[in-house]
Amino acid sequence: MSKSKILHEMLSSKSIIKVGGAFDAMSAKLVEISGFDAVWAGSFAISATHGLPDASILTMTEFLNVASSMNEACQIPIIADCDTGFGGPSNVSHMVNKYEKAGIAAISIEDKVFPKQNSLLETGKHELLSEKDFAAKIISAKNAKDDPNFMIIARVEALIANLGIDEALKRASAYENAGADAIIIHSKKNTPDEIFEFTEKWNGSVPLVVIPTSYGSVTVDELISHKIKFVIYANHSLRASHLAMSKVLTEIMNSPSLNDVNVDISSMDEIFQLQKMFDIKTQEKEIEEKLKKLGYVD
Amino acid sequence: MSKSKILHEMLSSKSIIKVGGAFDAMSAKLVEISGFDAVWAGSFAISATHGLPDASILTMTEFLNVASSMNEACQIPIIADCDTGFGGPSNVSHMVNKYEKAGIAAISIEDKVFPKQNSLLETGKHELLSEKDFAAKIISAKNAKDDPNFMIIARVEALIANLGIDEALKRASAYENAGADAIIIHSKKNTPDEIFEFTEKWNGSVPLVVIPTSYGSVTVDELISHKIKFVIYANHSLRASHLAMSKVLTEIMNSPSLNDVNVDISSMDEIFQLQKMFDIKTQEKEIEEKLKKLGYVD
Amino acid sequence: MSKSKILHEMLSSKSIIKVGGAFDAMSAKLVEISGFDAVWAGSFAISATHGLPDASILTMTEFLNVASSMNEACQIPIIADCDTGFGGPSNVSHMVNKYEKAGIAAISIEDKVFPKQNSLLETGKHELLSEKDFAAKIISAKNAKDDPNFMIIARVEALIANLGIDEALKRASAYENAGADAIIIHSKKNTPDEIFEFTEKWNGSVPLVVIPTSYGSVTVDELISHKIKFVIYANHSLRASHLAMSKVLTEIMNSPSLNDVNVDISSMDEIFQLQKMFDIKTQEKEIEEKLKKLGYVD
Amino acid sequence: MSKSKILHEMLSSKSIIKVGGAFDAMSAKLVEISGFDAVWAGSFAISATHGLPDASILTMTEFLNVASSMNEACQIPIIADCDTGFGGPSNVSHMVNKYEKAGIAAISIEDKVFPKQNSLLETGKHELLSEKDFAAKIISAKNAKDDPNFMIIARVEALIANLGIDEALKRASAYENAGADAIIIHSKKNTPDEIFEFTEKWNGSVPLVVIPTSYGSVTVDELISHKIKFVIYANHSLRASHLAMSKVLTEIMNSPSLNDVNVDISSMDEIFQLQKMFDIKTQEKEIEEKLKKLGYVD
Repeated sequence: MSKSKILHEMLSSKSIIKVGGAFDAMSAKLVEISGFDAVWAGSFAISATHGLPDASILTMTEFLNVASSMNEACQIPIIADCDTGFGGPSNVSHMVNKYEKAGIAAISIEDKVFPKQNSLLETGKHELLSEKDFAAKIISAKNAKDDPNFMIIARVEALIANLGIDEALKRASAYENAGADAIIIHSKKNTPDEIFEFTEKWNGSVPLVVIPTSYGSVTVDELISHKIKFVIYANHSLRASHLAMSKVLTEIMNSPSLNDVNVDISSMDEIFQLQKMFDIKTQEKEIEEKLKKLGYVD
Repeated sequence: MSKSKILHEMLSSKSIIKVGGAFDAMSAKLVEISGFDAVWAGSFAISATHGLPDASILTMTEFLNVASSMNEACQIPIIADCDTGFGGPSNVSHMVNKYEKAGIAAISIEDKVFPKQNSLLETGKHELLSEKDFAAKIISAKNAKDDPNFMIIARVEALIANLGIDEALKRASAYENAGADAIIIHSKKNTPDEIFEFTEKWNGSVPLVVIPTSYGSVTVDELISHKIKFVIYANHSLRASHLAMSKVLTEIMNSPSLNDVNVDISSMDEIFQLQKMFDIKTQEKEIEEKLKKLGYVD
Repeated sequence: MSKSKILHEMLSSKSIIKVGGAFDAMSAKLVEISGFDAVWAGSFAISATHGLPDASILTMTEFLNVASSMNEACQIPIIADCDTGFGGPSNVSHMVNKYEKAGIAAISIEDKVFPKQNSLLETGKHELLSEKDFAAKIISAKNAKDDPNFMIIARVEALIANLGIDEALKRASAYENAGADAIIIHSKKNTPDEIFEFTEKWNGSVPLVVIPTSYGSVTVDELISHKIKFVIYANHSLRASHLAMSKVLTEIMNSPSLNDVNVDISSMDEIFQLQKMFDIKTQEKEIEEKLKKLGYVD
Repeated sequence: MSKSKILHEMLSSKSIIKVGGAFDAMSAKLVEISGFDAVWAGSFAISATHGLPDASILTMTEFLNVASSMNEACQIPIIADCDTGFGGPSNVSHMVNKYEKAGIAAISIEDKVFPKQNSLLETGKHELLSEKDFAAKIISAKNAKDDPNFMIIARVEALIANLGIDEALKRASAYENAGADAIIIHSKKNTPDEIFEFTEKWNGSVPLVVIPTSYGSVTVDELISHKIKFVIYANHSLRASHLAMSKVLTEIMNSPSLNDVNVDISSMDEIFQLQKMFDIKTQEKEIEEKLKKLGYVD
């Protein structure tokens, strides 16, 4: 079964789909191991690990490489954060072809002007594209896709741009009409109030998605009871990794020996396991057996 | 001053050069921020974050991309772990050209047969290339380099392959004669005894390098007193990251809300800082000022 | 229908499968337009257009990028020349996974030692791998493939290495037993005699493939009557391109104006057509119509 | 001497700098061999060889890869066509850093809106960015560059967009004031009249560049006498290659044997020469000699 079909079926089988943010194949694999339903290949986290601003600086090429690498490492579906779609409608069309071919289950595009800046950057520019121009991108994405299960998620940034609930609802509805398969409603408030106001007034039929980075107090049960179908924990793996590495590196610099370092780390074997180091052993045995059958080995 | 020159000058200015392992630009930047002298772009860690075995599976292209990305993010020199040199002497020649052009300060090649397996994998194959064939690679690397400060490090795997101190010394000496600028003497023992036996018998003149992953009790002072010039902490950032992500993702899965998650994480602003998100603001101001001077803005 | 299935079905529907060599998406598209059945993504031609020796210098990453780009441009199947498989059995396993996922219909690996040199280079090294070690690669390829139609082609270099017909037959038979789906029998002679001697003595059941670069007098009918199922014209597009460019550039340098240049060139519109420039217009119209339906445009 | 310095010095040593268009390392090398002063890494030709529209579909990553590959193959400077700069001022800043580091001598950006379409496409959209917004990109490029010889070329598309000579002059002047090191004045007319009207009225001090694809009757002497400093023959190598490959492939399909094909092609040895196949032989000899000195070979 394709990953897009797996994701599609979760819509009916799960009360809420939990998506863990990752930035490379290892973090994606840890998202899977921890029990999440899907991986969020987030542009903020991927940009950060490349040492570059989350401002449309990395190109589609690098984002797609990372998402593909995750997809090859994981059994669960990958949802790729594609920012503004890397340009206009013809870029979006090309992008959908490439991501679909790579086996990615879903992509998300947002209604900001290209190049965009991170939604949670306080001093950031959050200029929106016109509703019509963004609808054109969604139409282009929909026209480009081959696989009916491949999901096009439209991300509404009206609340980030302080344009109010009505504009957010108007846009969300327009994007559904244009062909979006789901809507991310994003907020930078530190309570879920405006999100819940949105969901209560929303009468569309496609699933809703949230990214509660700034309103971390919201519970999964509250999300479910407010008709949210996907929750994305976008950047906690990145931020835990950042802190843990800062600590261990500082300790190593300040300790007489590695044994004096007081930060817990995984064993080499745990990493070998994740990167399928032992699979090579298994492969070698299978080849050896076949070589025996063919008479090359006694 | 070029990064290779910076690294070269540390040889005389520092009692020991501390090198921190990294696998992407963010971890490399944290190595720099923590005060290390240089970054180790390790093939084990880079393979792991791509979800692939440390067995010559990733190609030079990906390893070079990662090393370049680190180099663009950091002020300190990058030392690239180039495994067996990705093939024979002509591959090594091409590799040296590419890494030198990318601004990498030093590369390391090891005397295993291609494709190699990780040195600390207990059940791994650790077959060595003949001394002559590896000498040919070093000669090829030396002939290819343009920048006299670009450092070619030869890694001796004789102790990993259980061939004894004498073979290790013989090879290290041969590699120095062939043109190596430094020698990594690697061991999988859990004490530094064989390393110290090696260094005591060693009468070459190029600097020695160690990677004390398995013998973590050794102190920096002991290394200095045994004529070690570089110490590489190859994979602790990776392993701290792996553990911290496993913990935070498991907690998120099991907690009612993000606020109930009991794993420390860095703030968004710390990540923004690292990825130069605020530099865009500065750039925008500079452009604005120039536009004013040109009369475009009041 | 998948490209591998398309290729598979040609085995029964065609007396001989004609394969045209290409080195990028444009040359691949011209192979298709000219009526060939499949495209040969040859490592010699791809290396040449990268300005690099045909000696395992480019990595799998670049070869796969080119083959994927061809595959996205063409409707006909792509057969990828994968040299020696980029390493040992574990590299081959990884390679098969990557090429299969990219939609490539078939791959070819040859029984030379890695890194290899071009088979038609007179002064080149043509050392062969042991039959057993190459059988191990074929087994690994076969174990790795998911799609039963994905074709693993084993290329026998015994005649190139002057080892004689018997060794060539012995190896071809061994590779079929190990799981090869087809055999390339390669020769550098300027008549097809040794090829025909091979095919007459051959009693295997998998299809045979030839690359008649050096014995260009052989006719298609002769090939068919000698049980050859695939003929690959590997590098004529490259060599025609090389000559035509040399001429036009020299003429431009020596002519007073472009109009005085006496070399025929295609029109801009022919290139626009090939690169789907006009498809953007069509896409734009479809989007415009949908926007009209949605009420955004009058 | 850096390639940017080489290019810079041609400004005083040459009456006109002849630039040949290329799309990969081989075509770039042929530009060099034919005696051109520099290579134009054109986005139209590079897009075409990837089978993709010239409409900002390929990302900076691919364009930079091609330009770098050309640069590694050639001694003469590479001038990279960077379309609209791949986004806004922060993308341009990032782009300049990357191209400068890759050793590219000059980049060109044009004042169209992103994503752009080819200037010679009759039905294409040719919307221009505001003068101010494009000035901002030039300022950003200038602020980003480290090497004073690295050349930022601003391409004026006002004539393509039918905005008239005065607008073209106004913009060219504005771009020089913003920091452009040269101006491309582009025209789609089939005579050089409007170009010459422009150059006669132009009183800026930076060099002028033309691309006479559509007005091929113009002579080099006329260009020199009209103060043109660079002439770019952008796509003739591509179009000659396209035609020659179409012909040879069609002939192969329709001929009984390769020997009956009536299209001239270069020899294998000419290609081997270009791709430095024989350099490996030389390298091997140098290594062999050194191994002898070290006592490994008798």
